[in-house]
Amino acid sequence: MKKRRVESIRWHDGRLLLLDQRDLPTAENWVEMPGIEAIHGAISDLLIRGAPAIGIAAAYGCVLAAAHRVADTSAWHGDLDRLIEARPTAVNLRWAIERMRATVADGSTPGAALADLERAACKIHSDDLAANQEMARAGASYLAPGSRVLTHCNTGSLATAGVGTALGVIVRAWHEGRLKSVHACETRPWLQGLRLTAWELAREQVPCNMLVESAAASLLQAREIDWVITGADRIAANGDVANKIGTLMLAVLARHFGARMMVVAPRSTVDPDTADGRQIQIEHRPADEIWSSAGIAGGLPGIGAFNPVFDVTPARLIDLIVTEGGVLRPPYEQAISGLFGAL
Amino acid sequence: MKKRRVESIRWHDGRLLLLDQRDLPTAENWVEMPGIEAIHGAISDLLIRGAPAIGIAAAYGCVLAAAHRVADTSAWHGDLDRLIEARPTAVNLRWAIERMRATVADGSTPGAALADLERAACKIHSDDLAANQEMARAGASYLAPGSRVLTHCNTGSLATAGVGTALGVIVRAWHEGRLKSVHACETRPWLQGLRLTAWELAREQVPCNMLVESAAASLLQAREIDWVITGADRIAANGDVANKIGTLMLAVLARHFGARMMVVAPRSTVDPDTADGRQIQIEHRPADEIWSSAGIAGGLPGIGAFNPVFDVTPARLIDLIVTEGGVLRPPYEQAISGLFGAL
Repeated sequence: MKKRRVESIRWHDGRLLLLDQRDLPTAENWVEMPGIEAIHGAISDLLIRGAPAIGIAAAYGCVLAAAHRVADTSAWHGDLDRLIEARPTAVNLRWAIERMRATVADGSTPGAALADLERAACKIHSDDLAANQEMARAGASYLAPGSRVLTHCNTGSLATAGVGTALGVIVRAWHEGRLKSVHACETRPWLQGLRLTAWELAREQVPCNMLVESAAASLLQAREIDWVITGADRIAANGDVANKIGTLMLAVLARHFGARMMVVAPRSTVDPDTADGRQIQIEHRPADEIWSSAGIAGGLPGIGAFNPVFDVTPARLIDLIVTEGGVLRPPYEQAISGLFGAL
Repeated sequence: MKKRRVESIRWHDGRLLLLDQRDLPTAENWVEMPGIEAIHGAISDLLIRGAPAIGIAAAYGCVLAAAHRVADTSAWHGDLDRLIEARPTAVNLRWAIERMRATVADGSTPGAALADLERAACKIHSDDLAANQEMARAGASYLAPGSRVLTHCNTGSLATAGVGTALGVIVRAWHEGRLKSVHACETRPWLQGLRLTAWELAREQVPCNMLVESAAASLLQAREIDWVITGADRIAANGDVANKIGTLMLAVLARHFGARMMVVAPRSTVDPDTADGRQIQIEHRPADEIWSSAGIAGGLPGIGAFNPVFDVTPARLIDLIVTEGGVLRPPYEQAISGLFGAL
């Protein structure tokens, strides 16, 4: 019995619909995006999240903005500039928007290029789907039969156009009979693991155990994990990886307790213009994201929050980076140059 | 302006009242414990928590049980045996109950020893208060001016009879002007940090930033922490420390990023009969403690949970253990023998 494929982005007849991921798994609400402002809000407010997915949504946003701006090329570029700022860390957003921008030839207008823009957005969407399949195949091939894996956040169909990045590897490896166990961190403060990854794995009939982030150390100490597998929001030219807060913790623990660390991300996540992790801007979000779970609106007097959304894992803690263009191993500078054909 | 001291256990005229810590900080509800069964429930259901606090509550429970059992010494011992099992990891519970048991001389009855039992429980209570003050003094003296500290869970007045263990050190060091910053982990799944530690620090006017556990790695990576300071639920004879899930993660990260690790606990938490951490029984709790925060009662099909309440940090990752009987340094076998006068 084949289940309907999970997706988070639908484009049909020039209309864009996004699945509101904040309501999952209790409700599946699709929201139409009338224009680029709505998409900006949907990305900043986490209605849609996941580095590849926000890139795809943004690409369609460029199409909607072109239909609105028509001949006002300068206003269209302004729209795109603002959309890039919706979330600063994941590079896929900027990558997709710049690709859309380059679709309009010098001297032309977004209105004149509308059909080309729609084709470009659809290609970003379908390329991601194909990349997912290739990453899943390549990543799964590294997992020896009986492997026990631990993942973080949500990197599945909801975060991408296809089977996902890290979660695509895990689901494929499970169905290939390679996995003995799957564990997934709940991923505070937004609980993407508990709400989204668990829901996707249940639909895929992949058994899994959820854990709070702080329990990962116990699991690794007990030698119950062979591979930690995560996605990425930006990979620097030296292989440093920005990803959901908690990835650095998992990488340090994996190294300390003798497990391996695999990062799975499309080539669009690799940013050769970012020399290393220190150059990556880390988004910080409001304290109320933390307080809300304790039912204390506005917090307590004198008590603030340290709420970064991402962290940077140094390349030396990463054993493999799986992309659709090849599987990278240290030293990453060379491997990443090779990925972009610079060698 | 001196605030009313925070407390979680009140004994007056033979009546025991406990502050329901599950309702904090939104409500302060005191619940009377009519007998030992109610105390068993209060401990298992986390109405009261914190290793020293559950020891004290259990001691008063032995008094209430003695008033009920009077001449039925064997039934009284049975009550105590069951109470020991309410939570398996923290040794203070067993320690307090065994101390109460020893108060009734061979051939006597709990009813005949009632006054002695009440005195013994009150002494456990007041000794803990005094031990807290001594630990706070001793621990704070190790924090150089300008120190930046990170703590986990709740180890303050709510978890003890006095100023607390790790939090007692932090509050004292703050008021002595030794601290530049205080960070506290929210402590999933029960959020003792966010609900209890933040509330205590706000009352003590100690500024603090809260973080999700997974953000601790970023903070340590940025070299923003000098000391990780935690309590303990059981310390083995070799210095291995069982404490709230997440402590092991913090200890590994502290060592990796060059911060130091201080454990603060009364001598009653040190268990010379437990050779090392492998002998410590780790309590696991139901999956619904995790699911409830995602609003998914009962979870999802095929998805389980790994939900240990405690983890074991190996002695080699701990720089100092502060007790009221002295500050211990490695090698801990000798230091702990010395604490019990065996050397």
